[in-house]
Amino acid sequence: MMSPIYLTLTISILISLCSSNLFVCGTEWKPTWSTGAAEEAEAVAAIPCSGHGRAYLDGLVLNGHEPVCECNPCYSGSDCSNFSSHCAANAGDGDPYFLEPFWMRHAASSAVLVSGWHRMGYTYSDGSYISQLLVDHIKKLHEIVGNAVTDGRYIVFGGGSTQLFNAAVYAFSPNNNHSSSLNPAKVVATAPHFPVYRTQTELFNSRDYRYEGDTSLWKNNTDNNGTTFIEFVTSPNNPDGKLTKAVLEGPNVKTINDRAYYWPHFTPLPSPADDDLTTFTISKLTGHAGTRFGWAIIKDKGVYEKMLTYLELNTVGISREAQLRALKLLNVILEEGDRKEIFQFGYSTMRDRWSRLKQIISKSKRFSLQKLSPQYCTFFKRVRDPSPAYAWLKCEREEDKNCYEILKAAGINGHEGSMYSDDDRYVRLSLIRSQDDFDILINKFTVLVAKD
Amino acid sequence: MMSPIYLTLTISILISLCSSNLFVCGTEWKPTWSTGAAEEAEAVAAIPCSGHGRAYLDGLVLNGHEPVCECNPCYSGSDCSNFSSHCAANAGDGDPYFLEPFWMRHAASSAVLVSGWHRMGYTYSDGSYISQLLVDHIKKLHEIVGNAVTDGRYIVFGGGSTQLFNAAVYAFSPNNNHSSSLNPAKVVATAPHFPVYRTQTELFNSRDYRYEGDTSLWKNNTDNNGTTFIEFVTSPNNPDGKLTKAVLEGPNVKTINDRAYYWPHFTPLPSPADDDLTTFTISKLTGHAGTRFGWAIIKDKGVYEKMLTYLELNTVGISREAQLRALKLLNVILEEGDRKEIFQFGYSTMRDRWSRLKQIISKSKRFSLQKLSPQYCTFFKRVRDPSPAYAWLKCEREEDKNCYEILKAAGINGHEGSMYSDDDRYVRLSLIRSQDDFDILINKFTVLVAKD
Repeated sequence: MMSPIYLTLTISILISLCSSNLFVCGTEWKPTWSTGAAEEAEAVAAIPCSGHGRAYLDGLVLNGHEPVCECNPCYSGSDCSNFSSHCAANAGDGDPYFLEPFWMRHAASSAVLVSGWHRMGYTYSDGSYISQLLVDHIKKLHEIVGNAVTDGRYIVFGGGSTQLFNAAVYAFSPNNNHSSSLNPAKVVATAPHFPVYRTQTELFNSRDYRYEGDTSLWKNNTDNNGTTFIEFVTSPNNPDGKLTKAVLEGPNVKTINDRAYYWPHFTPLPSPADDDLTTFTISKLTGHAGTRFGWAIIKDKGVYEKMLTYLELNTVGISREAQLRALKLLNVILEEGDRKEIFQFGYSTMRDRWSRLKQIISKSKRFSLQKLSPQYCTFFKRVRDPSPAYAWLKCEREEDKNCYEILKAAGINGHEGSMYSDDDRYVRLSLIRSQDDFDILINKFTVLVAKD
Repeated sequence: MMSPIYLTLTISILISLCSSNLFVCGTEWKPTWSTGAAEEAEAVAAIPCSGHGRAYLDGLVLNGHEPVCECNPCYSGSDCSNFSSHCAANAGDGDPYFLEPFWMRHAASSAVLVSGWHRMGYTYSDGSYISQLLVDHIKKLHEIVGNAVTDGRYIVFGGGSTQLFNAAVYAFSPNNNHSSSLNPAKVVATAPHFPVYRTQTELFNSRDYRYEGDTSLWKNNTDNNGTTFIEFVTSPNNPDGKLTKAVLEGPNVKTINDRAYYWPHFTPLPSPADDDLTTFTISKLTGHAGTRFGWAIIKDKGVYEKMLTYLELNTVGISREAQLRALKLLNVILEEGDRKEIFQFGYSTMRDRWSRLKQIISKSKRFSLQKLSPQYCTFFKRVRDPSPAYAWLKCEREEDKNCYEILKAAGINGHEGSMYSDDDRYVRLSLIRSQDDFDILINKFTVLVAKD
């Protein structure tokens, strides 16, 4: 038997322990089946990798294997602490790791626990492959940011915007039937442009459409034979970050507006996009390239329905896990603080990077960067500095015809201008990668420019 | 100050509380950022929906909204407790809900917690879009089950097997270039067959290949002009569950072997598949159709590389979340118990369903089912009864030319025979849906057959 005085004391100790966070108390929620998954995820997240790498749940960690750090480029060792100064700067692909620190700061609100029986069927309860809740989140986000009109528009999801490009080309092309089309649609873009418009269109090699090169070849020639023209317009443009407009005009011209970078991180927003067909991707909004989640905003119901058919027969829609994750991430943006935090973070990071690079390049006569000026942004409600995703660097010396090779020799790996259907005097440098990658890039340029 | 006697007592109370599970103790693992996600997932999972529906994390549950039950067909109400006996049986689509109870029983080991910064980049650490750890799991699984040879083979991932079909057609077709192919590959299948082979091939309408109908049209005619033939072979077959072989032969014939149903759930396994190109999907293995995850096992390196190019330009690979989930699910199969549990469960469920349906139909002269016999299975190491995924039902009366309409009038919704390029005297009935759907199907048939 416990005497009253002992009992009182013990209870008061327990209460103070409860509130001290040392214990989770009986009246609070207690996990049951979720504990293992939560523990596994936190154990992996707790591995520091010296701040120069990450351990992942699908690295070698399942069932008691030792978790393995995956190191940033130029770092190595079991804890990623060894830096190799001879290693080349990775400024090639557009992996948007610059947003990783934002999600680490929002660890609690951005985590999702997926049960073993989560959404096993093909469709949502309305019979579609598209989460209506996620559509609503996307519409709300565009409304808050002011970068796209969505009222009365249709929305479809794709495997990144990549899958949506060909879905849109298919939907805009005439004569989608079994016979050879006598007059396939002509698919075009203006250099410098994202290479996938060409490579993807050529890969599918359809009887209904054909890649026909640069818009300049067709500028005053779109009334021919009633041929349909499908123009890819990227704004801001990849690689050079400029706000662009369609070049072709006329009743037979359709445009696919790739707005992957039309977010406050990368560009001033002069007005909401209000086109027949616009694509976005979570990759350049939240930084989750690996999720492979994009969406298209479509005016015409017929085009929307053709895209749905395409997406069903290509992949039967998009992974439920990807849709669930996108929902959670957008929810963090929409529900936390003033709804501007990710955009403030994205913008200030990209502006600072651009400004550091520009300062170094400005000391050089050998290299130049694309010209971008401060401009009024309707989201921030003020004039803001440039903050492009990529530098479109030019080698100015007559003899430096292959700028990619010049940079490579100096330990800087970018993408050749010819990848973007432009001159090899240009190189695209990705500024949206990790801070480590950017710091190495800056160091290499500092050395290179000092040699001038 | 606490006297020694108080302290000792308090510590002993704490120790007993610790081990009583009322408290999670300081020395044990304590969740930090994962708590919200775990709590949210468990709260949703705890909603019973009367056993006739489920609540999901991406239903209306985020941020304090009331979680909503999504009811099985014919059930309604906020807790799915209202049954409508006039409602038609859903035996149409192949949503594999029959495996849901298995995952509910393995809630702890099958849950995954995805952090906000999980795999944001495009590639894994080896630069590919394909998790090598998941490839290893898949190979191990095939080895244990004995349903496919994987030694020295290449593996690629697709958005379900659906995306892999066209990737394989592309890879097998000659002349993948920009000009019109004079001699496109002929894509064929043997009726009754899964409709997507035709509809997908026609949708892409490529210059490199063309859908050319039934194999019977080309049986002794594959040497013509060096034309490439691409034959889809489904074994066990969808819709009729029969183990099939390729019909066409010759040096110009390539086969795409769709082995979606080649698991102990659905068929005896006479020997491991050992073909040039075989596709599988997690949908019919674990029941996760919504994950959109499939894989192809490929002998030839050139074919593998063409498929990789296709998958990159189509969707830049498969969602990292889908790959992580697939890894976790396969891990449960591989690491728990005798590694036979899911197959025992799948087989006994499907065998019992087939046996119940067969018993009812056997009383009728109006309807018949496909003939399937017990056969030796190398996995179970014994003769086992049939357990097909679908019934391929025939209306036997001369006047019942449209079997789909006959069944529909009796409150049974299947798929028309003509969808499978066969006679409308046949209907495909899905037996892999929820227990509720199957029970309603049995009830409707009991009534229908009694009317004979």
